Formats: sequence, C-alpha cells, structure tokens
Amino acid sequence: MTQNVYDDPDFFEGYSQLQRSVHGLDGAPEWPAVRAMLPDMAGARVLDLGCGFGWFARWAAEHGARSVIGYDVSANMLERARSDTPPDLPVEYRTADLDRLTLTPESCDVAHSSLALHYVVDLQRLVREIAGALVPGGTFTFTAEHPIRTAPLHPEFVTDDRGALRWQIDHYLVEGPRTVNWIDADVVKQHRTVGSHLRTLIDHGFVITGVEEFCPSDEQLRQHPEWERELHRPSFMIVSATRA
Amino acid sequence: MTQNVYDDPDFFEGYSQLQRSVHGLDGAPEWPAVRAMLPDMAGARVLDLGCGFGWFARWAAEHGARSVIGYDVSANMLERARSDTPPDLPVEYRTADLDRLTLTPESCDVAHSSLALHYVVDLQRLVREIAGALVPGGTFTFTAEHPIRTAPLHPEFVTDDRGALRWQIDHYLVEGPRTVNWIDADVVKQHRTVGSHLRTLIDHGFVITGVEEFCPSDEQLRQHPEWERELHRPSFMIVSATRA
Repeated sequence: MTQNVYDDPDFFEGYSQLQRSVHGLDGAPEWPAVRAMLPDMAGARVLDLGCGFGWFARWAAEHGARSVIGYDVSANMLERARSDTPPDLPVEYRTADLDRLTLTPESCDVAHSSLALHYVVDLQRLVREIAGALVPGGTFTFTAEHPIRTAPLHPEFVTDDRGALRWQIDHYLVEGPRTVNWIDADVVKQHRTVGSHLRTLIDHGFVITGVEEFCPSDEQLRQHPEWERELHRPSFMIVSATRA
Repeated sequence: MTQNVYDDPDFFEGYSQLQRSVHGLDGAPEWPAVRAMLPDMAGARVLDLGCGFGWFARWAAEHGARSVIGYDVSANMLERARSDTPPDLPVEYRTADLDRLTLTPESCDVAHSSLALHYVVDLQRLVREIAGALVPGGTFTFTAEHPIRTAPLHPEFVTDDRGALRWQIDHYLVEGPRTVNWIDADVVKQHRTVGSHLRTLIDHGFVITGVEEFCPSDEQLRQHPEWERELHRPSFMIVSATRA
C-alpha cells in the first residue's frame, strides 16, 4: 500500500505552501518540459494518476479533453481538488491507492502521472493496469523523482575541498524504499533505477517516445539562481510512451 | 575527432593487461548481460564499432554471422585483432575514426558497439550512420560507460563519517568532455546523460527494446567482493534498439 503522508495535517499544511501547490502547473519548474511531451488533449479520455489538487486534470479539461478522471489516495487533496474545479469541466475525482487501483480495459486515450510513481510499491502492477486501460496508440506520460535523487540512503549535497558542490550517491542499483525527511515528515519513497522504469514500460507493450531529465533553462536559472544545483543532480525524470 | 589513446605505447601496454584484454568477453563482467540482449547472429551481417582486439567480432562469426566488419581507430588494436583472428572466419577489420565513419546504406543486420561511444564527439552523426546502415528490423546494441560514472569533473568515491562509501556526482546535466586519468594517461571521454543517449536513438527512428544498468550477480560478488561498489555507482549502461 502506498504511504499517504498527504493526510497528515502538518505535512499537508506545509505542502500546501509549496510553489507548485500555490501556483499549480506554472509553479512547477518541470512543467514546460512535461507539456512539450504531452499529446493533444482534444477529445481525449484522460486519466490522472495521483492527481493531487487537480491542476493537471483541470488543464487537460480546459485543453479539450472529453473526460478526465483524477485518482488520489489523499482525502485532503481530493477535497481541495473538487472545490477548485468548476462544475462545467468534465472532471471527476476518485479516491484510489495506486497500489490497488484497477482500471477499465481500453477506456482511455491518455494516462498521466505527476510525481506519484515514486510512492508506488508495485510499479509492475500499476503499469499493467495502465497498459490495459489505454486504447492501442494511447499515450502514457509520467514524471517521477529522478533515480539519482532517490538512490542515496542519506541524500545530501556536500561541498568538497575545492568548494565544489557534489551530490552524494550510493545504492543506485539497490531498489526499494527510502525514508527521507521532507516538510518535517518521514516520507517513504520507492527508489528504482532509470533502466527499471523503462523496462517496466517495454515489458508491458509500451514504445518509449521520450526520456527527459529536467534541466532548468537559462531563463529559469536567471530567475532562480539556486536551481543551479539541479545541473549536478537532476530532480525529475519525464517519460512518454505509446501503447503499441 | 575521437581521441586515440590506444596507440600510446604505455597506455596500450597497460590496457593489454586488463582482465577484459587478456580473457576477452569472459573477462568483461557485463558480458552475460550484453549477450542476453543481443539478437541471433545466424546469417547476420554484423558491424562492430570500436572493435578493439576483435573479441566480439570473432564471437559473432563463431555464432553464425555471415560477415563481420570490425572498425577501430587504433592501429595497435587492429594489428592484434587481425593476428588473433583465424583466416577461416568471415571477419574483416578496417581502420576508422567513429567520428568520421561512413557506412553503406542498408548493408547490415546487426550493429554493436562495446565501450566506444563515450569517446565519440558527435553521437548524432554516428547514430544517423548506423540507422542508415541497418536494414529495417535490424538491431543496434551498445555498451557505454554509465553517465553516473562519466558525469563528475573529479570522479571519486569518498567514505563519509558513517564509514559508508559514496560516489561523488556533479555536472550530470552538463554534457561534454571529461578528462580522467586511466592507466596513467589523460583519457578524454564524452559525458552524455541517459536521456540524451536514448533520445538520440529515438530521433533516428530506433525503437528502444532494452535498457540495462549493469549490476554484478550474487555469484560475481562472491568471486569479486570488490565489485560491491558497483551497486553504488553503475559502470556500464547497455542499450538495445531496433530500427523501425
């Protein structure tokens, strides 16, 4: 079962103040890269797996999706998602643990998941569900924390003798849970290698169409000089795939 | 132009004493993983890009390849490759800089490259040549130094306060040359991200069929306990792809 830290009141309060919680997609540095990898939403039946506050679900509906179903395990997140979604948008929210979710076969054209897969314990099972739910030619896009970021047991940057910032990586090839402190909570994330993510897609009949490791643009670095550390250690992996 | 450190006499002498130089494919820890991703050689026209001593070229011929052409920039390597290859095997060796190599369109079924692409400056150009040289349905497999290994400006393991071994990674998203000391020589390798390797294949019409990050088996770790550090920082990326 996926950990549901988002229903911890203190964590939720802290999470709600992040840029991406306040400003939505435009507050997420990786969004332009994600958007460039998304298919056309016009007329599409869309699933959003780990929909959070529903920012992507609403964006998809506003860009022509015929229907959008957002799934999330957090009652807090879904409550705000529902209250933030105008009733005329074809968006529905459902409570679901991504480790137990079952989906209707060949019921959708686009599946998307933003920063949720690293909470999922059994990725094989979920990808099998997604592959089954998509029609042939349907697309699956996801963002996840980059494996270089999730790998270490004690993730941190260290400044070396030369004054250079270096990310400490260990146990990259040892998959499994990692407990990290985030927003004053012990958050359990599942570390998997890049290869493991991609093989899981290939093994379930997907053709990989894009693999990005988010790099801030020059313009983003001008506005947020502190993001330069992303050049050393990418935070986000973005993958797109088509169901064969 | 690709650096040709292999024709430096001292480097060549040192390189010739590595396990993989003395024992060939069986001396390369990643070989079982590579072999599992290779297509059937029976009747295939095979290219070996950066063939070195010709171990793979001979293996391909011994496993039924109709013809094998091995390319390498190093006169030293090719001399030994030729002298080690029985005249009855359908193997030919040619001198070529992989940054300048041109290949005959639709002339081969299998292209393979072992630990050579990280020397190539213009990977786009080479992959375009390979895509053109393969027949539709042909396969390209390669091994390259893992980007986690090639990224840092000063690659090293450091033991932290807890006594744990940690790989120092920096500049992962900054592609370009890295000069590392190997076998007492300054060797220039080209760092590219995982995503960049895969996008280059996809952009040239390949379908990715496998992505492995070499992990020693339990049996290998029993025989070589010192390889345990590979679990922290993978040395090899292995990719297979089919020309659509």
